[in-house]
Amino acid sequence: MVKLMLALDVMDKNKALTMVDEISKYIDAIKIGYPLVLSSGLDIVKEIKDKTNKEVICDFKVADIPSTNEKIAKLTLNYADGIICHGFVGRDSVEAIQKIAKQYEIKTHHKKKVIMVTEMSHPGAVEFMQPIADKLAEVAKILNVDGIVAPSTRPERLTKIKKIVGNIPIISPGIGAQGGELNAVLDILGEDDYIIVGRAIYKSENPKESAYKYSMLLKGHNG
Amino acid sequence: MVKLMLALDVMDKNKALTMVDEISKYIDAIKIGYPLVLSSGLDIVKEIKDKTNKEVICDFKVADIPSTNEKIAKLTLNYADGIICHGFVGRDSVEAIQKIAKQYEIKTHHKKKVIMVTEMSHPGAVEFMQPIADKLAEVAKILNVDGIVAPSTRPERLTKIKKIVGNIPIISPGIGAQGGELNAVLDILGEDDYIIVGRAIYKSENPKESAYKYSMLLKGHNG
Repeated sequence: MVKLMLALDVMDKNKALTMVDEISKYIDAIKIGYPLVLSSGLDIVKEIKDKTNKEVICDFKVADIPSTNEKIAKLTLNYADGIICHGFVGRDSVEAIQKIAKQYEIKTHHKKKVIMVTEMSHPGAVEFMQPIADKLAEVAKILNVDGIVAPSTRPERLTKIKKIVGNIPIISPGIGAQGGELNAVLDILGEDDYIIVGRAIYKSENPKESAYKYSMLLKGHNG
Repeated sequence: MVKLMLALDVMDKNKALTMVDEISKYIDAIKIGYPLVLSSGLDIVKEIKDKTNKEVICDFKVADIPSTNEKIAKLTLNYADGIICHGFVGRDSVEAIQKIAKQYEIKTHHKKKVIMVTEMSHPGAVEFMQPIADKLAEVAKILNVDGIVAPSTRPERLTKIKKIVGNIPIISPGIGAQGGELNAVLDILGEDDYIIVGRAIYKSENPKESAYKYSMLLKGHNG
């Protein structure tokens, strides 16, 4: 069964905590971005982890030189189960994060995931990112990262990228508010993959009901 | 005279505050990255600004979709005088930050700078970033950003990029620990440009003396 990751893109700490309290039983993982962390402090990651005991991934789109990436990973993976980074800046920048993840795994005996962006879905991504998306997927495969981010908005691209990365799990945003078609995407993804849903849950009138609905759609699909 | 920007790449809040206290009179601007902000909270930006009254730039290498970039910019530019972002994710992502900067400028009557990375100096940058560095510089020119980041490690590239961006100020790392030659770089840069020095100041045995030395070198150069 494809897993459900909540993109918790809210900026208010209390709203974030109330939200995960309400819906954590319907989701498999929680994705937290810089807006929430900048407004609440990095401790929010630990709080959400402690509260839910779900997989917590920091979507920081880390894109700096290796030594800075290393420092960011050290602070983030101390609390989070995974971190999302860009491959665009080069494989040494990704490897710097992988090194830290390995260190934590040895120390804590818990998996720490390094997840790489291969493709993005906003209009501006066509300029520099889309032309190299397949190459980024190849780099992800070579580096043997623990996941890649590829959007659900164009199923044919998702199919292509899945073919390149093989058994590396795909984390796929674009369902819900961005208009990606769930069934088309679920036909492509497998049981190690995730769909990311954000606004369609946290901005809905009844987030709990919406999360439940998505969890049922995933359960009901025989992909 | 070329300006001196301190890359305050330390992770300890007290060390950061002591450091800027000691050397702020020799520098023109302070660059703060995610490692310090993640370990201390975003308030550190305000504290450093209040303490020094120098220009404070958040080097967050922002590289997300427009709506997330917007949220990051909103939180960051509330305190900082500028923010560094990536252009490779597309011009809409940069424009989202520029929109927020403009809003703050209208509200506060203070300049808020949006600075774009065009080229990076670590080995991995040769793979995807260097081939498009000139194009990124052209995008920076079209978007009329308030500064671009281009490294001092290869003066011939700095010359080329300066030619493309014209009067847009260059913020240039790579002097000191990374081995960039100061005089070669100062011959290229002008009075609106900055050199960034980090480790050669904050890791030196006597940071105050080192900062003073750099400030004198800049003053003494007739570029």
